[in-house]
Amino acid sequence: MGTHDEPSIVMDVAALDQFMFEAFGRPLTWTIERVDLDGIRVRQPTGDGDLRPGGTISGPTLMSMADGVAYMVVLSRIGPAALAVTSNLTINFLRRPRPVDLVTDARLLKLGRSLAVVDVLMYSDDGEPTALQQPVAQATVTYSLALLDSQGGTT
Amino acid sequence: MGTHDEPSIVMDVAALDQFMFEAFGRPLTWTIERVDLDGIRVRQPTGDGDLRPGGTISGPTLMSMADGVAYMVVLSRIGPAALAVTSNLTINFLRRPRPVDLVTDARLLKLGRSLAVVDVLMYSDDGEPTALQQPVAQATVTYSLALLDSQGGTT
Amino acid sequence: MGTHDEPSIVMDVAALDQFMFEAFGRPLTWTIERVDLDGIRVRQPTGDGDLRPGGTISGPTLMSMADGVAYMVVLSRIGPAALAVTSNLTINFLRRPRPVDLVTDARLLKLGRSLAVVDVLMYSDDGEPTALQQPVAQATVTYSLALLDSQGGTT
Amino acid sequence: MGTHDEPSIVMDVAALDQFMFEAFGRPLTWTIERVDLDGIRVRQPTGDGDLRPGGTISGPTLMSMADGVAYMVVLSRIGPAALAVTSNLTINFLRRPRPVDLVTDARLLKLGRSLAVVDVLMYSDDGEPTALQQPVAQATVTYSLALLDSQGGTT
Repeated sequence: MGTHDEPSIVMDVAALDQFMFEAFGRPLTWTIERVDLDGIRVRQPTGDGDLRPGGTISGPTLMSMADGVAYMVVLSRIGPAALAVTSNLTINFLRRPRPVDLVTDARLLKLGRSLAVVDVLMYSDDGEPTALQQPVAQATVTYSLALLDSQGGTT
Repeated sequence: MGTHDEPSIVMDVAALDQFMFEAFGRPLTWTIERVDLDGIRVRQPTGDGDLRPGGTISGPTLMSMADGVAYMVVLSRIGPAALAVTSNLTINFLRRPRPVDLVTDARLLKLGRSLAVVDVLMYSDDGEPTALQQPVAQATVTYSLALLDSQGGTT
Repeated sequence: MGTHDEPSIVMDVAALDQFMFEAFGRPLTWTIERVDLDGIRVRQPTGDGDLRPGGTISGPTLMSMADGVAYMVVLSRIGPAALAVTSNLTINFLRRPRPVDLVTDARLLKLGRSLAVVDVLMYSDDGEPTALQQPVAQATVTYSLALLDSQGGTT
Repeated sequence: MGTHDEPSIVMDVAALDQFMFEAFGRPLTWTIERVDLDGIRVRQPTGDGDLRPGGTISGPTLMSMADGVAYMVVLSRIGPAALAVTSNLTINFLRRPRPVDLVTDARLLKLGRSLAVVDVLMYSDDGEPTALQQPVAQATVTYSLALLDSQGGTT
């Protein structure tokens, strides 16, 4: 992982798509809209499976998405040769999500040798100009980092 | 909800089972082992659907279980006439869960008029005497509370 | 507090300065640099009292500043007639603060009737152009809100 | 630090007292009441300096105490040859502390090679039998761990 002194993108949209597809073993329903040094944006159309009675998106769906997108922003900078294990996830549920696209923005607050901290903001995007100003949830996710050696173990 | 000055159990194992069954719309795979003033214990046999490559239980599965069991400990004390909405969930992943029973203990740290705070500890129970001494995860879950009126709205 | 549907600033820099001065009973050492709908920025020159051996700023100093500035951003929008009590503070220590100005940015993620959630980012400002891009700490602070009646009790 | 497979106390009450006295450079006002494998208990008489108008203990005082006692429980197990830096502190303020002794209990949830996680419960002890059943605050504190080499650097 080096010292991260000169940040660069080591996995782009196509590489992340391929990696997550292989990790999940099934086609992904989200779209990675942006990967750059400012972070990553993922759009998830909301299907019926995620909806709770009343037409909202369940808390576990939001938590799972926050963890997944935060993981991808770490991957975009350290690549698949490193192991990132979630050590802490803190989420604040701010507003009731609506049954429209869920947009998740993640950006790295810190990328150290052994720890990465990611800030996540999630929005219900109904197409209104103000939709991306009022987050439905905010999360902070911390990962323990380790290099994988050539046998797949950790150093 | 009253002032909670004299704590009592208003929903027992059978009442919680019935409520959660109706909320989820399908048979539950967990067993509520204990409901009392010290809190609640739930045992979840680990099936293949929750397993990640390598035979561990996924983070989203742990988060979803933490939220569900914390919700039940609130319900056990305030009953179904109140509305509890998760406002914050903080989880620390401590050890790699193993593909054995997942045991979740939840207890109320605070039950106020508008806020409830629940402490959750989760264990991989392989039957060893020390299994319930080394948690795989610890979570704190906060709920905003509101009374439902007779029309199902909130006061 | 109303419904906060039309956000406006009800306490500006001068009003916040006066309020905090009266609350603390002594001259403040920080400067409020900005109060607007995007949030608030406070600059704290670092004096010897806050320094730990090695010339860094102590964790408690950061936590205390995060809580204080988050409180002011809530006050700027709801005014002194409301009571805001900290219910949760989560802080990630990201980099070692240096003995230079500590700059704290706070913005409201949510301002509801009974709950406010504030995002806080803290920086060591040595005057370099990139100083405000690498936070030394990130915090999320939640407040329980209540209106004060004319006798100073809460409704 | 070894593998922590056989937990033992490497700093007892006297060793912790001496270490903290040297770290703070002034006599400590708290009393370490217990150090064992279950954790540590510290009692802090509440003096006027910690009190806010209304006779309660300030949030920063609670946060500072939570961090300090959590740090000591880590020290009790890894000793002064290791460096523990707070990476995350999450605190829930549960009840208004009263101007009586503040009792803080800390116990290790995890002591790994690079990360320690500590659970903290704080009580207002007025001598009543139930005082230690209703915490005024709960905190979780995470430390990054590193061994110090003989020159005081980290490995």
